[in-house]
Amino acid sequence: MKLDKILKKQLIPETAAKRLILYKRCLEKMDENGINTVQSSDIGNKCGIKSSIIRKDFSYFGDFGIRGKGYEVKNLIDSISNIISSKEEIEVVLIGAGKLGQAIIHHSDEKCDVRLKAAFDRDSSKVNKTFNGVKVLPEDKMEKFIKENRIKIAIVAVPCKEALEVIHRLVDSGIKSILSLALVPVKVPEDVEISFMDILPEVEFLHFKLKQRSII
Amino acid sequence: MKLDKILKKQLIPETAAKRLILYKRCLEKMDENGINTVQSSDIGNKCGIKSSIIRKDFSYFGDFGIRGKGYEVKNLIDSISNIISSKEEIEVVLIGAGKLGQAIIHHSDEKCDVRLKAAFDRDSSKVNKTFNGVKVLPEDKMEKFIKENRIKIAIVAVPCKEALEVIHRLVDSGIKSILSLALVPVKVPEDVEISFMDILPEVEFLHFKLKQRSII
Repeated sequence: MKLDKILKKQLIPETAAKRLILYKRCLEKMDENGINTVQSSDIGNKCGIKSSIIRKDFSYFGDFGIRGKGYEVKNLIDSISNIISSKEEIEVVLIGAGKLGQAIIHHSDEKCDVRLKAAFDRDSSKVNKTFNGVKVLPEDKMEKFIKENRIKIAIVAVPCKEALEVIHRLVDSGIKSILSLALVPVKVPEDVEISFMDILPEVEFLHFKLKQRSII
Repeated sequence: MKLDKILKKQLIPETAAKRLILYKRCLEKMDENGINTVQSSDIGNKCGIKSSIIRKDFSYFGDFGIRGKGYEVKNLIDSISNIISSKEEIEVVLIGAGKLGQAIIHHSDEKCDVRLKAAFDRDSSKVNKTFNGVKVLPEDKMEKFIKENRIKIAIVAVPCKEALEVIHRLVDSGIKSILSLALVPVKVPEDVEISFMDILPEVEFLHFKLKQRSII
């Protein structure tokens, strides 16, 4: 089955897609260390995931393993990249160039297909500065930039109290997928996806899970 | 049914627990704005979640709604806090006081039950500094501090290449739940839970989902 067909038919569950990203990290490290072929059990040992699950995940995009020999590392990286990231860069805007925004900018040179096209901030002391190759533009230019560059993904790294307004403006500008680093109650249209990555609420959740396991 | 019984029996699914944290945020905002009672539909409209799901989530810890009148905001906040965070502070250590670590420290004064007991870093220029009330200690004191203070949860905010070593040391020190901000392939013992919050791989995942929806 052709790749675009696999994707259109949504044959890859989201949980598997998340694991594929982890395998890719693992394989890239193996590749750097000069390892050419791997068994699913090698990946399993490094990632803490059962070999059977790994083989199932790989089967979603066709079986590249050779019985007894395992998988070719470079082939596998390419195959996963094709599925997950496509070959183009993933163009993204970042809203908020404060401490958190700058931390993201400084991490973005790591081996990754994500390209921060621009950052936006309302603080004039940050505007027109360039951090790690990413220019900070004034926040009121956000909508125009997103439309002109047809950006579909945005990272929101503004304080909680500003996040709601920013999210609504992003939706109005045509953004279809938002990663908000502040957990804010918000309703977005059905064709827009919002996901949250807020560290402190996540810690509360981890604490809840420990309580459920009677560890705390 | 008593609260501790509910928790021990694991009657609250993790997905519901995550939503409870979001509802709490929403209710706290309503409380600040002087709103005393709410309907599930009010919360639903703000959070983009169906009223029926919200009522189901609330039913996990007993029905506090009064027919036609809705829920008392303050009661609801207390009930959710009891379930999710318990009444004590959640004591956590932070490993890594670089840009990302400092961003976390500066966010930690927001309304939240999480308390960063200490941060650890191997960079001597950061050690003994205090950011936002959180002291940075030398990384080699990490194990002793965790054991003495019986900390069970750690946030890892070190660069990718250092994360693996740090995670293994945390496990050896008795940490049972790790939130790593770097996505690294790692195998931990069964009684330790590790979750990842790495922004760029998450963006790759969002891009993958847009592709599946044929938006990109």
